[in-house]
Amino acid sequence: MAEMTINLKENERIDCLQRKGYRIIQDPGKFCFGMDAVLLADFAKAKPEDKVLDIGTGTGIIPILMEARYEGNSYIALEIQKESAEMARRSVALNHLEDKITIVIGDIKEAETYFEAASFDVITCNPPYMIGQHGIANPDEPKAVARHEIKCTLEDIISRSARLLVPGGKFYMVHRPFRLAEIMTCMSKYKIEPKRMRLVYPYVDKEPNMVLIEGARGGKSRMTVEKPLIVYEKPGVYTREIYDIYGEMAEE
Amino acid sequence: MAEMTINLKENERIDCLQRKGYRIIQDPGKFCFGMDAVLLADFAKAKPEDKVLDIGTGTGIIPILMEARYEGNSYIALEIQKESAEMARRSVALNHLEDKITIVIGDIKEAETYFEAASFDVITCNPPYMIGQHGIANPDEPKAVARHEIKCTLEDIISRSARLLVPGGKFYMVHRPFRLAEIMTCMSKYKIEPKRMRLVYPYVDKEPNMVLIEGARGGKSRMTVEKPLIVYEKPGVYTREIYDIYGEMAEE
Repeated sequence: MAEMTINLKENERIDCLQRKGYRIIQDPGKFCFGMDAVLLADFAKAKPEDKVLDIGTGTGIIPILMEARYEGNSYIALEIQKESAEMARRSVALNHLEDKITIVIGDIKEAETYFEAASFDVITCNPPYMIGQHGIANPDEPKAVARHEIKCTLEDIISRSARLLVPGGKFYMVHRPFRLAEIMTCMSKYKIEPKRMRLVYPYVDKEPNMVLIEGARGGKSRMTVEKPLIVYEKPGVYTREIYDIYGEMAEE
Repeated sequence: MAEMTINLKENERIDCLQRKGYRIIQDPGKFCFGMDAVLLADFAKAKPEDKVLDIGTGTGIIPILMEARYEGNSYIALEIQKESAEMARRSVALNHLEDKITIVIGDIKEAETYFEAASFDVITCNPPYMIGQHGIANPDEPKAVARHEIKCTLEDIISRSARLLVPGGKFYMVHRPFRLAEIMTCMSKYKIEPKRMRLVYPYVDKEPNMVLIEGARGGKSRMTVEKPLIVYEKPGVYTREIYDIYGEMAEE
């Protein structure tokens, strides 16, 4: 394998993903991936031959983890912020994944100009969770765009995903439980039927702070709610399952 | 208090509810109330001045437990099966609750002929969980009617509840998680916005088998998902919380 030069911008750092030797470039001042991305990449499934789209990829973490886990060579990752997209491209190059993961700079609301209808088997998305942009000082800031529905809404994502998925294609998303009713209603509206859901509870006696959801385009109305995913055994100590999920990343 | 004669039919028995000395008549050959009814009566809230409707009351367990807990004197309970309704009436009389709980024999699909629109503050419902009546030998059997959507569908219940509730009025239901997407979509369709939800897991590492849900007529789209309700600590041993819920019934 040829030597390569890694160009890091100011404040950027390289983190090891401890899986297949993969690494990722992040800028802590902008946005770093969180547990939500790792759990979504674990909850989502893909076959090696699937065409997979990640909407709003940010650092590119989800397709990189998915490729590490499921193989496959047809990951497309869409990112509206040019700087993030370029950073994700450098992470893809850093891992020599240019043939497998393609970062596309673009807006999901204009997805039909980049992609053919019914052209993806799997779509993943870790979208902005918060509605609107109340009290945001700078709505152009990468963190604000990643967290608030500034550039796109839940409905933008679901409606475009419905057009882009093949019949029976799978949609995977992580979101906040307070929007669960809206998520399910919107998925049903665009015929991405919720099929599987898992709630992530920080502790066994606390409200969940994440929901993982799988939909199938044109699926029937019957779903599985999975066992609870509990994050902490006690403060500072993850549960066995969280260690296993991260462990899969760690055990190469 | 005057002596009273209790008329029990063949196979009927009287069970103590261990709360306020209340008792209930049940026929094990037909249908006995389960943990779902007890959990719903605990999850639901009512103020003493509320007008409360229970749809498909069966034995009358839910209004009897609700009255024991929340007081109030305006519980109406609708039951389509004449025999069940008459048995529930005898339970109401047995507890001297005739002034507080009224059993109405009728079909929720014809609710507008019995009740005025927007006339209830709270509606509770422990409906049949199963879709259709595949493989049911005798669809007139009380057990079949209680378990399968023979006499009414989920949409019948939600659509009529939306008409019967005052604006802001609360709708409480227990159901099976496999129908969660359908429940939320249907509630949103009829403007009973899901506001609160709790999943009931038999064990901490098992799929949930019940969902408790609260909706508000005309509410905004933002909900709380509560901490998990775990039933068993280990086989045969309930968790503290389940003991507490049943304990509230037991501690007089």
